[in-house]
Amino acid sequence: MDQPAYPASRDLAFNLTGGPAGATPATLAALGRPVLHHLDPAFGALYQRTAELLQQAFGTRESPVILPGEAVVGLEAAAASLIGPEDIVLNLVSGLYGRGYGAWAGRYAREVIEIEVPYDSAVSASAVADVMRVRPDITVVSVVHCETPTGTVNDLDAISAVAAEHDALLIVDAVSSFGGIRCDFTTWQAGLVVTAPQKCLGGTPGLSLLHVSEAAWARMEANPAAPRGSALSILDWRDAHLADRPFPFTPPVTDIYGLHSCLEQYLSEGAEAVLRRHQAAARAARAGAEALGLTLWARDPLVRSDTVTAVRMPDEIDEQDVRALARADSGVMLSGGQGDLARIVLQIGHMGTGAFPLGAVIAVTALGRALRSLGARADIGAAVEAAVSALDA
Amino acid sequence: MDQPAYPASRDLAFNLTGGPAGATPATLAALGRPVLHHLDPAFGALYQRTAELLQQAFGTRESPVILPGEAVVGLEAAAASLIGPEDIVLNLVSGLYGRGYGAWAGRYAREVIEIEVPYDSAVSASAVADVMRVRPDITVVSVVHCETPTGTVNDLDAISAVAAEHDALLIVDAVSSFGGIRCDFTTWQAGLVVTAPQKCLGGTPGLSLLHVSEAAWARMEANPAAPRGSALSILDWRDAHLADRPFPFTPPVTDIYGLHSCLEQYLSEGAEAVLRRHQAAARAARAGAEALGLTLWARDPLVRSDTVTAVRMPDEIDEQDVRALARADSGVMLSGGQGDLARIVLQIGHMGTGAFPLGAVIAVTALGRALRSLGARADIGAAVEAAVSALDA
Amino acid sequence: MDQPAYPASRDLAFNLTGGPAGATPATLAALGRPVLHHLDPAFGALYQRTAELLQQAFGTRESPVILPGEAVVGLEAAAASLIGPEDIVLNLVSGLYGRGYGAWAGRYAREVIEIEVPYDSAVSASAVADVMRVRPDITVVSVVHCETPTGTVNDLDAISAVAAEHDALLIVDAVSSFGGIRCDFTTWQAGLVVTAPQKCLGGTPGLSLLHVSEAAWARMEANPAAPRGSALSILDWRDAHLADRPFPFTPPVTDIYGLHSCLEQYLSEGAEAVLRRHQAAARAARAGAEALGLTLWARDPLVRSDTVTAVRMPDEIDEQDVRALARADSGVMLSGGQGDLARIVLQIGHMGTGAFPLGAVIAVTALGRALRSLGARADIGAAVEAAVSALDA
Amino acid sequence: MDQPAYPASRDLAFNLTGGPAGATPATLAALGRPVLHHLDPAFGALYQRTAELLQQAFGTRESPVILPGEAVVGLEAAAASLIGPEDIVLNLVSGLYGRGYGAWAGRYAREVIEIEVPYDSAVSASAVADVMRVRPDITVVSVVHCETPTGTVNDLDAISAVAAEHDALLIVDAVSSFGGIRCDFTTWQAGLVVTAPQKCLGGTPGLSLLHVSEAAWARMEANPAAPRGSALSILDWRDAHLADRPFPFTPPVTDIYGLHSCLEQYLSEGAEAVLRRHQAAARAARAGAEALGLTLWARDPLVRSDTVTAVRMPDEIDEQDVRALARADSGVMLSGGQGDLARIVLQIGHMGTGAFPLGAVIAVTALGRALRSLGARADIGAAVEAAVSALDA
Repeated sequence: MDQPAYPASRDLAFNLTGGPAGATPATLAALGRPVLHHLDPAFGALYQRTAELLQQAFGTRESPVILPGEAVVGLEAAAASLIGPEDIVLNLVSGLYGRGYGAWAGRYAREVIEIEVPYDSAVSASAVADVMRVRPDITVVSVVHCETPTGTVNDLDAISAVAAEHDALLIVDAVSSFGGIRCDFTTWQAGLVVTAPQKCLGGTPGLSLLHVSEAAWARMEANPAAPRGSALSILDWRDAHLADRPFPFTPPVTDIYGLHSCLEQYLSEGAEAVLRRHQAAARAARAGAEALGLTLWARDPLVRSDTVTAVRMPDEIDEQDVRALARADSGVMLSGGQGDLARIVLQIGHMGTGAFPLGAVIAVTALGRALRSLGARADIGAAVEAAVSALDA
Repeated sequence: MDQPAYPASRDLAFNLTGGPAGATPATLAALGRPVLHHLDPAFGALYQRTAELLQQAFGTRESPVILPGEAVVGLEAAAASLIGPEDIVLNLVSGLYGRGYGAWAGRYAREVIEIEVPYDSAVSASAVADVMRVRPDITVVSVVHCETPTGTVNDLDAISAVAAEHDALLIVDAVSSFGGIRCDFTTWQAGLVVTAPQKCLGGTPGLSLLHVSEAAWARMEANPAAPRGSALSILDWRDAHLADRPFPFTPPVTDIYGLHSCLEQYLSEGAEAVLRRHQAAARAARAGAEALGLTLWARDPLVRSDTVTAVRMPDEIDEQDVRALARADSGVMLSGGQGDLARIVLQIGHMGTGAFPLGAVIAVTALGRALRSLGARADIGAAVEAAVSALDA
Repeated sequence: MDQPAYPASRDLAFNLTGGPAGATPATLAALGRPVLHHLDPAFGALYQRTAELLQQAFGTRESPVILPGEAVVGLEAAAASLIGPEDIVLNLVSGLYGRGYGAWAGRYAREVIEIEVPYDSAVSASAVADVMRVRPDITVVSVVHCETPTGTVNDLDAISAVAAEHDALLIVDAVSSFGGIRCDFTTWQAGLVVTAPQKCLGGTPGLSLLHVSEAAWARMEANPAAPRGSALSILDWRDAHLADRPFPFTPPVTDIYGLHSCLEQYLSEGAEAVLRRHQAAARAARAGAEALGLTLWARDPLVRSDTVTAVRMPDEIDEQDVRALARADSGVMLSGGQGDLARIVLQIGHMGTGAFPLGAVIAVTALGRALRSLGARADIGAAVEAAVSALDA
Repeated sequence: MDQPAYPASRDLAFNLTGGPAGATPATLAALGRPVLHHLDPAFGALYQRTAELLQQAFGTRESPVILPGEAVVGLEAAAASLIGPEDIVLNLVSGLYGRGYGAWAGRYAREVIEIEVPYDSAVSASAVADVMRVRPDITVVSVVHCETPTGTVNDLDAISAVAAEHDALLIVDAVSSFGGIRCDFTTWQAGLVVTAPQKCLGGTPGLSLLHVSEAAWARMEANPAAPRGSALSILDWRDAHLADRPFPFTPPVTDIYGLHSCLEQYLSEGAEAVLRRHQAAARAARAGAEALGLTLWARDPLVRSDTVTAVRMPDEIDEQDVRALARADSGVMLSGGQGDLARIVLQIGHMGTGAFPLGAVIAVTALGRALRSLGARADIGAAVEAAVSALDA
């Protein structure tokens, strides 16, 4: 054939990545609304309504913060705002994002203690409890709920209880979990949770969505080094959703349109239905990948994420080649290994608009075709059968 | 009447503000393109092409930087990246943004020297030369090209020559000038210039567009305190437009679509034609406002911006009321006074998609109707005649 | 200047024509919804809902018909379906559309009687009564409510009463009146009314919207020559909105999306508020045009339409040149004379999205600039003042 | 589960029907361009350019006609315009559309002769030749290229040669073939061909796209009964694409935007590449359906269409139930049987945007899941394997 079915010049057909994971047509249509001035009353009303919808989605008593900047901005801002030179941070590391958070924590903390586990596993609550017993001076616990590159989850329900018991402030990266995996910020007594629209909510990258507890606000206000008058300031945006409060600077108007739209869709579908949709898609992806002949990266079923599945490539097969072929021949975009996992592990995303019944069928077909092109074996038929059976399980 | 023609629930008809200043239908359509994963080859190609178009628009030899985050992020990042504890910064203050920059400079510099002039005037190059003669240890000059809240411009052609003569690094805020007022980054020998899509280019707020000279890059790399691994890091994004370079984090995909589209339109219209369009709109706005009976904030015609016109309200008239009525009755959104100018001065924007022949007619009609509603005099007929005459001048 | 502000390659800024008259951003966004198969349940639900909204807008007991094809299709289909070789049609002619309808009626009727009046006036109900008294064998009365090319209206309230008295079937062309001028299909006892989305409703051209009375349905069914299995068949589409009824052929899916959206907006704004908006815009357009020095085509204020204003050009001035200049220099599109009025009369549309407070200001400014360019006098200032005053009258 | 994955309130995920077959995001974005007045110079330029692109796509010397109204309007108009009381029409019937055309031909012709074959087969050129030898007075041959409901094609290359030999005017319904199956209007010496945007071109329903030969134009002009001043008039639209020619009535502006966009995409992809894409999708659909355990409706491989595949349901299984489940559980919309084939046969569309590599995988998975839900056997794994193998054949 002269050229692949999907050359780079042609948009992909299926975004089955670890995010940005695509948006519905309704969300895309919302992005085209004329760009209002941020002080226009119509924008003010929309912004306020969006904050209310987000609070509904969060299920919290506190108003959330919509911080301009992709999720990493919210994560960095959380460290800068909440961690001070008196703090001893326990940072849990079960993947690259956890490792990265340690660096941010280290900029501001007196000391950072880490529990690191192999990246195909999770940090256990008992390990956390052990460390906290030994080091009762720990003031902050930071943890990534779902590690996208490896598709693993830490058990926040258990870990949060340990942190709460020791009165440590809990900082959670729920960027690729919220909306796809049950998150109960209130029961967790989480101090600060960061999530984002472009994963399970089907929005655009460009915003950090923050839950901040009353205790965390108090701490932030008491922290003289917490950013103010800065892109990293959470405090600046605390009251932005209140009528007649000026924005600290121009918010990304278009991203707010998108967030408003995808929150409406999320709430209309219903949090429980959205979770079930992610669970079904995840079951299908895992079953399909295994039946295809691949090994799931995380061996323990309990640590596998419902939003993204990491799979190990057969020996001699470079995941970059697999993904390039899946994109070129089948129009399917997958995510790739990062860090040590580059060339070894790839991810099938099933989050947000990527979490739909036939997603796994599409993914395993694209993967299977690519593997075969590279000379590897792949039982596509069995994979699809397994995916389909898992859907109805 | 039961309710105004344009209640808050209804979008405005005309965005004649100091920015975000609206977008063309073509740009809005571009925003609705499906959200690609940032590592998708189609997105990579688009990003690279966008950086090339931006370089063409900048007219520079160096590749520009597209930094995620609204313009203030670029401005803060410039200070954080380029100003160190050895630096003595000369910050020029002719308005609120200049004043604000002093605070950022002060965070990082050994010393900040300021030349402040009344906000209805501009800093003269000779004043800069005088200070630099006295303080040859000045290493950085920071200046705002156009002060949006007051519609005034500093003469960058002259000021840049002085800075260059003293080998000082020049940091320019060209956010609300680039695209509407001639900017020659190369002749200026500017170290770093920050601009943004949502003003004269007709894009969305959410990106900082940076020109960085080779000298500035060298300085940044030599600065151990320059942000790295941070939302404020310019260094992280230096090579993001190169093929096969990973993005430091997920760029705001949708904003890039918009930027690509509005740059294509800008280059297709032609830089000179765009400047003429802004000049004509500015002439009309000034003439119209004066004929309406209002006083232009900047008395010296040479300091008046071609992108925004600040006008003083009659005594006893609060500009907030005027703007609320212009929005409610005429569907025209204008910008308001900030800081000391609140309630006294408002701005008619004529930038980007707001710079069009009948813009001034629409603005003065809306203003005149609002003023009359508040009991003030306003000669709308004369104002429109003056605006129309100025267009063809 | 090298080229006009608005070359043909650049979209206009203001559509102030007699229709298609533009659409709101919300309607335009609706058009981009993925093209569903017409038998998809989601499309079925939308179609049914759209028919319900249309019935609400019509304020009728009967379900309306959404006939594929621009308004002329509905008009031709009405003649073909309702007029048979036994019929004697009284066709009222006060403009080009009325004249045109006579030709359609003549194809099917035994005899067509016409009352024709000068095109700057309207057919009086008493003239209709006179003819009907003399010719009690008239079975059908056909009438154009608003003649777009001349901006005149026939008094349907009075004329319909005469037709009803004589038990004649009333066929009404309300294409450029419905939504902008009060239409009471039920009180009129109208047999069939044709309107369309692209005028006062702010939709797209491509659909005929029909009210058909029970009596008219009976007549149509009894007419063996009424089109069936044809693009001109109204009967085929009678039940298309009912669940589980197949469409006779594929409806224009995208136009239905647009119609649904603009009906939602119409009903949300409220019929009375929409009428007031059109009245204000019409007052302003008339006052502005007269103050500009132009003569309104219809001398009798009672026959002037609230949806479009026809104005006579000064001697020696060709309206085609005026419109070309208004488009090129001001970005304002107006409508032109047709038939005998070509080159003499132009129309300022103020219908649908073109009916907004500053519309007249924009129109007279563009007209004035164009007239001046052609060497004619035009008092733009006075025109704008008059328009503004009329708005608040 | 409380409710299906895809309730009616939720848009489908995949439009794999016999058309309207969906549109690309680029085409959908084009639909949202502001609604221009049809006489606006920007619309004139676009219309002219669209006609040129269509001529390029048709590969003809003659300018095509863009007739407002879905394809059936073009088909009816062709009969009304070209068939007169002197004509003897040979109408070929191999499916429902062919049968329908006989009715239209019969309205206008002196006599209609038909060759009807079972709907799972095609009319052979030799049968046509036989009849034409016996009836040399035949003046018109009408034929459907691809019968959508049964997925069968008549061999136009051979049939057209027979018609040409006898100097009969050839009328072709290429609605669901053009763009997916090779069509050579010039070699065919076709008098009139009707196609449409919403099938293989990925546009919206609402337009008929006509190729008319010089001979057919001459005939039409000579036909006093050819519609003029009517929605069915082809003559009225003959010169609509010429600069400065008025449109007979307002064209569906938005559909023209869509047509322009999808023609640009079609020509950019290239006619040959588009054909190959359809062929691959068709191979996969057929192989997949058979491996699923279903019987292809058309037993002769030579009569199977590359744009749509009709498959027979297992005994006791109603295709309506299958399609409802495929839509509800898998988000896949398929087309259903019509006429005698209702409840027995369904169609998998693979035309336009529905012709893509994984389309067949998605279709057979959805079908298989639905069949299993209804208690039937379906080997999904084998079906997917077969589809995938066929892709690369």
